[in-house]
Amino acid sequence: MSIKQGKQTYINDRKVYIKETAAIVGPREKAGPLGEYFDEVQQEDYDEKTWEKAEAKFANAAFQKLMRKIDKKSDDIDCILAGDLMNQCIASSLGLRDSGIPYLGLFGACSTIAEGMTTASLLINSGGMSHVICMASSNFCSAEKTFRMPVEQGGQRPPTAQWTVTASGALLISSEPGGPLITSVTIGKITDYDITDSNNMGAAMAPAAADTILAHLSDLGLDANYYDAIVTGDLGLTGSGILRELMDLHGCSLYCPEEDRFIHQDCGAMIFDPVKQKTNSGGSGCGCGTAVFANYFYKQLQEGILKRILFVGTGALMSPISVKQAESISGIAHAVAIEAQ
Amino acid sequence: MSIKQGKQTYINDRKVYIKETAAIVGPREKAGPLGEYFDEVQQEDYDEKTWEKAEAKFANAAFQKLMRKIDKKSDDIDCILAGDLMNQCIASSLGLRDSGIPYLGLFGACSTIAEGMTTASLLINSGGMSHVICMASSNFCSAEKTFRMPVEQGGQRPPTAQWTVTASGALLISSEPGGPLITSVTIGKITDYDITDSNNMGAAMAPAAADTILAHLSDLGLDANYYDAIVTGDLGLTGSGILRELMDLHGCSLYCPEEDRFIHQDCGAMIFDPVKQKTNSGGSGCGCGTAVFANYFYKQLQEGILKRILFVGTGALMSPISVKQAESISGIAHAVAIEAQ
Repeated sequence: MSIKQGKQTYINDRKVYIKETAAIVGPREKAGPLGEYFDEVQQEDYDEKTWEKAEAKFANAAFQKLMRKIDKKSDDIDCILAGDLMNQCIASSLGLRDSGIPYLGLFGACSTIAEGMTTASLLINSGGMSHVICMASSNFCSAEKTFRMPVEQGGQRPPTAQWTVTASGALLISSEPGGPLITSVTIGKITDYDITDSNNMGAAMAPAAADTILAHLSDLGLDANYYDAIVTGDLGLTGSGILRELMDLHGCSLYCPEEDRFIHQDCGAMIFDPVKQKTNSGGSGCGCGTAVFANYFYKQLQEGILKRILFVGTGALMSPISVKQAESISGIAHAVAIEAQ
Repeated sequence: MSIKQGKQTYINDRKVYIKETAAIVGPREKAGPLGEYFDEVQQEDYDEKTWEKAEAKFANAAFQKLMRKIDKKSDDIDCILAGDLMNQCIASSLGLRDSGIPYLGLFGACSTIAEGMTTASLLINSGGMSHVICMASSNFCSAEKTFRMPVEQGGQRPPTAQWTVTASGALLISSEPGGPLITSVTIGKITDYDITDSNNMGAAMAPAAADTILAHLSDLGLDANYYDAIVTGDLGLTGSGILRELMDLHGCSLYCPEEDRFIHQDCGAMIFDPVKQKTNSGGSGCGCGTAVFANYFYKQLQEGILKRILFVGTGALMSPISVKQAESISGIAHAVAIEAQ
């Protein structure tokens, strides 16, 4: 059973474990500061003729890698929760169509993996499910094609722009002991601060991250420093600055003066070296938080370097059409509290 | 708690009610055989300048209508589950961004409302949630623009083609008594019969519907005639014929000889008069099954005309890009067993 506490948070009464993870990244991610942690590297086109087929192959490969790591057959998995940024989420459906596992498609933009972990925790707490796979993917070239300009055009990017991460990841969320525990989840609301610049997704998502983190801490009566790290998915450098400022304004600093460090970390700000790799504000995309959580933070929790983290997936709810029609870019964020065993 | 039975089915141990529904349709739907049942009619453009904004307004209006019908504030609703067919599901996120309710975005193509009902049942059975709103929408013109040709071009349609339904609908799924009960749910697998004709979605979705209906009946040890009606979302006339044939091949006829009638009904085949309205194979889209369930089948259950139905949302997992890249169109279907009280 899950127990609702406050307005948006659910505490897992039945224990939910992140039993195993797998991730596959592209060459730019491999060349970044976290490169050594990733399970596998593949070229962005993954030997396919189109970027969409390549992303679907990335999704499939992360699923296959996870299945090889765990001692389970397809029939043992109750359900897959998956999504991506492609129109009609085709990377996930094409990548997983042969899995033979019941499938629930999600759309949470770059918050998808956190939406999946949140939903999986609750589904396992409903009692009927034991093993749920959560997945998400993104591909730099398929995202550029879908959301911006052809890569070949070589358009200039402003400093606030982010680089979509080429990566796919899969997590086995399970009631079977093993791996860090998901102790509670907080479901985010859509926030909208009237941001209309699609080259500044960090600004659109930061208010959603702040809203969800504040809701989580308030619902559970916690201070930010209860967590060793509050990890956002892909705010990038610009969005991270905005989040920290917003949290200060709400009297809930993410800076820990005793240890002279920020409690807040961001997968998008960590995955690339912005100077050497010229990646402007950092990484973004469904695959960013997914791969960095699956292969970096998961290991930090496994090794006890981090004891307690709040993983906050962040998503920008927009399409190229909505931006062209002068609609503002809404944000959403879901938070997953995770404890090392 | 939910209890898993068989491979894909979950029985609701905690009682889950469909407490209230609301739907808004366009003029073509109002002029069809079910016209008298719909809550409200609005023009396809809903006084907006773009089809996408119109669909978002339809989504918002169905949400507002549901909220007016129920004696609840936004704060009473634990979560909204919503999705649509637009790229990056913008109709739902734009339409619901001011709701102030925790939001989980779904992508199940035209199966979205059934995916929502399935997920909502399990979330309520996790114990922490009491009231979940499920929503889906589609708009003829926004779908034509996204998936096919500009409406103004007046392209010819083959007989297997369907007309996207302009409609939005919202359901309050609740643990609070009132309305028909959701007794069990079956989560579908992605099926793929190598259909590549995007003018024949019925053929792509029918195998998924058959697969999920067979799984449901097998998991629970039921015959098809246990249900007064097995209602698919939007197979249309062509897809309905294929489903009935596939079920015959599996030795599970959807025809009831004692009563000389088909147990199977399809919202897409019912919503238009194919001769008078020249709608080829019938209606389709997220809004089709949603509005017909919300305003027709729901009332049939409320009035006791139908006692037990299996509602099977059907979705085609594809995008215009995947079709152009010669990928086959996968299908998915989720089944929700509903009993009148």
